[in-house]
Amino acid sequence: MGKETITILETNLDDLNPIFFENLFARLFKEGALDVTLTPVLMKKQRPGYKLTVVAKKNLDKIIKLIFAETTTFGIRIRKEERVVLERKMGEVKTKYGKIRCKIGIDQGEIMSISPEYEDCKKIAEKLKIPLKVVYEEVKAKAKDFNAK
Amino acid sequence: MGKETITILETNLDDLNPIFFENLFARLFKEGALDVTLTPVLMKKQRPGYKLTVVAKKNLDKIIKLIFAETTTFGIRIRKEERVVLERKMGEVKTKYGKIRCKIGIDQGEIMSISPEYEDCKKIAEKLKIPLKVVYEEVKAKAKDFNAK
Amino acid sequence: MGKETITILETNLDDLNPIFFENLFARLFKEGALDVTLTPVLMKKQRPGYKLTVVAKKNLDKIIKLIFAETTTFGIRIRKEERVVLERKMGEVKTKYGKIRCKIGIDQGEIMSISPEYEDCKKIAEKLKIPLKVVYEEVKAKAKDFNAK
Amino acid sequence: MGKETITILETNLDDLNPIFFENLFARLFKEGALDVTLTPVLMKKQRPGYKLTVVAKKNLDKIIKLIFAETTTFGIRIRKEERVVLERKMGEVKTKYGKIRCKIGIDQGEIMSISPEYEDCKKIAEKLKIPLKVVYEEVKAKAKDFNAK
Amino acid sequence: MGKETITILETNLDDLNPIFFENLFARLFKEGALDVTLTPVLMKKQRPGYKLTVVAKKNLDKIIKLIFAETTTFGIRIRKEERVVLERKMGEVKTKYGKIRCKIGIDQGEIMSISPEYEDCKKIAEKLKIPLKVVYEEVKAKAKDFNAK
Amino acid sequence: MGKETITILETNLDDLNPIFFENLFARLFKEGALDVTLTPVLMKKQRPGYKLTVVAKKNLDKIIKLIFAETTTFGIRIRKEERVVLERKMGEVKTKYGKIRCKIGIDQGEIMSISPEYEDCKKIAEKLKIPLKVVYEEVKAKAKDFNAK
Repeated sequence: MGKETITILETNLDDLNPIFFENLFARLFKEGALDVTLTPVLMKKQRPGYKLTVVAKKNLDKIIKLIFAETTTFGIRIRKEERVVLERKMGEVKTKYGKIRCKIGIDQGEIMSISPEYEDCKKIAEKLKIPLKVVYEEVKAKAKDFNAK
Repeated sequence: MGKETITILETNLDDLNPIFFENLFARLFKEGALDVTLTPVLMKKQRPGYKLTVVAKKNLDKIIKLIFAETTTFGIRIRKEERVVLERKMGEVKTKYGKIRCKIGIDQGEIMSISPEYEDCKKIAEKLKIPLKVVYEEVKAKAKDFNAK
Repeated sequence: MGKETITILETNLDDLNPIFFENLFARLFKEGALDVTLTPVLMKKQRPGYKLTVVAKKNLDKIIKLIFAETTTFGIRIRKEERVVLERKMGEVKTKYGKIRCKIGIDQGEIMSISPEYEDCKKIAEKLKIPLKVVYEEVKAKAKDFNAK
Repeated sequence: MGKETITILETNLDDLNPIFFENLFARLFKEGALDVTLTPVLMKKQRPGYKLTVVAKKNLDKIIKLIFAETTTFGIRIRKEERVVLERKMGEVKTKYGKIRCKIGIDQGEIMSISPEYEDCKKIAEKLKIPLKVVYEEVKAKAKDFNAK
Repeated sequence: MGKETITILETNLDDLNPIFFENLFARLFKEGALDVTLTPVLMKKQRPGYKLTVVAKKNLDKIIKLIFAETTTFGIRIRKEERVVLERKMGEVKTKYGKIRCKIGIDQGEIMSISPEYEDCKKIAEKLKIPLKVVYEEVKAKAKDFNAK
Repeated sequence: MGKETITILETNLDDLNPIFFENLFARLFKEGALDVTLTPVLMKKQRPGYKLTVVAKKNLDKIIKLIFAETTTFGIRIRKEERVVLERKMGEVKTKYGKIRCKIGIDQGEIMSISPEYEDCKKIAEKLKIPLKVVYEEVKAKAKDFNAK
């Protein structure tokens, strides 16, 4: 497991048209945000709204500028946190539908998590007209052996 | 228990500034809505939004007009439902802080629910500078005897 | 697929201590409720609360009595709906951890869904001190073959 | 306002990997679903899950098949509702950024709602590197005059 | 943009009657809280509950006392964060409905956000019996020119 | 009021079967977690998911290992916070249903909170076949006197 310092930016939004969030998310990731989440909350005067949370390591000034430009907020909260991360490797799993890429999370040589590439699975499901869950289960089943290696 | 027929109006909103909801709620109740609720949901294209639910018995046309006027929706869903209701009486409970009104729900002569008037309790809590929960508990404790009568 | 008529009971709760829900759920299922759900909503005066939804086929009067007794509501909404259901069978899947029961959903002879028994998987995970997700994936992998039969 | 009969399909999901929802939504719309929403709920045994709601007018059998195939559910609830809809027209609004399409909602000749095409606004915001909210406000400002015509 | 240090207070509540939140919010703001939010969460034993978040710069001891007095919690979490804020000015926008106050957010001389005073807009909407969204759009449209100055 | 330093661990999960949470919660508490919460959020690509929050004072390495083993995450965020806590005492309240244990929260000799033991109340409600809310109200009423001592 590696360790790194990250920055969390948060702001509460009670008067932003929620249709803007898709674009906001896309622009934040383009500026290098590592993660973006939205939480439905109840705010001042019991107004419904959303808390926006952005995790970033760099480009903080640009990200702050972007949030002020694209939303209606007047203030953004900032804190530092540590993050422990698994070592990441890309792997390929042989399935009866062909090879599918997986993101593999490793801790001290041990595989902790195998995450099939969503887009790969989706493409196969669409091409073969089978349920996406069937493709996922095939990958997970074959990845188990991979796991055991 | 009484029985009555009510109408449920529902619409999903993904592009309405959430600051408008307070006013919308107030206007809907003024038109005779019996209940209004807002549920955070995920909509088309996985957009965050709110489902608005209005319960009404009369003025349906006015309520529909109002929703179209005050929101951004293009369609409102409508269904009929039954509703069973307790018989309602207003009562007064003697507490050490004075008399406090309660809404009492009765089924076949039996008291099922006693609901202290929120505004009464709040006024006393403010005047005496005591926690609201303390006032509530006093009312509930005394209402229990009332209950037993 | 079978078809059946069910009844949906709904009520909004803005002044119920949420610690009561666990007990309410348990009692509702004991009375024969088929499903119970709770949705966080925003209610009248923009108060936070919960919508309780109960799906039932029988014992409606008892269930209504129970909701009035265990909650603070003064009214319960009722509607009828149809429900299409898969044919259900219990099966057993042989895994490297032993046999695990599965609930199998079938439509016109075709297996649509295989759902490992949660408690079986949990017991094995606890006994062998392995992650629950590993047990689940083993069952799903072996059930796939079962699926193919 | 027009009136039409629609069908609402609902199911609760407590054991579906949420990464499958994006694909499920896309497939449902491809089959002709009019609206799809997801609500975070608390289910049986107080498990966190999602309620899936699909609004449709046709292809009900295909949609039901699809939900059973792509999710883990064993039952889908069905009800009929009415829906009142505004008359829809597409219009174009001249803005300082060029023409932008709008969806216009009309009731008895009166414009009730003007909804800028999200994708049009987004393209302009990207091209001109200006905030999306600025483009939206320009469209809304100009649409107001259009409104007054 | 200015920078300031703020304190975040958080506590999870699984056994508080949610009707108390309105009063709690009001008292917290009276004690000088800068922001208060409520998030629906799932807690210990998978109980539904709410996370209360309070942002404050001063009166921390009083705010902590208040939370203990008005809620059922046994512990409150505290952390420090930075907050970047836009420079705030109050302005007036001339609209066809008269002058309406706006809160203006400025960064290095550039206007980033213009927020119409909710109460002003609401009063006009009520007086003229027009939708609140129409008043807001008029203000935003006129504020745009103000913006360009 | 006492003060202590605690650690907050957080991770966002968009591809974990939500049926695993009950087991995850149980294992986290067994490792010494002080509190565990789950918040429904909208994540990257607007995917629905859950934020897991764990509060702990010790066994951090084991808890981190456990989260990686039982979930699908590749990274866990960590921060330190202070926590102010009431002094806790266990007490017994005499009610007409017998003695019921209560958790009492005290600040400088003053009782701030009295929390009836949920399991005690539930057992009595079950044995006497009375609503749980009635038992709770009895305890709260009698605890008030206890409070005044």
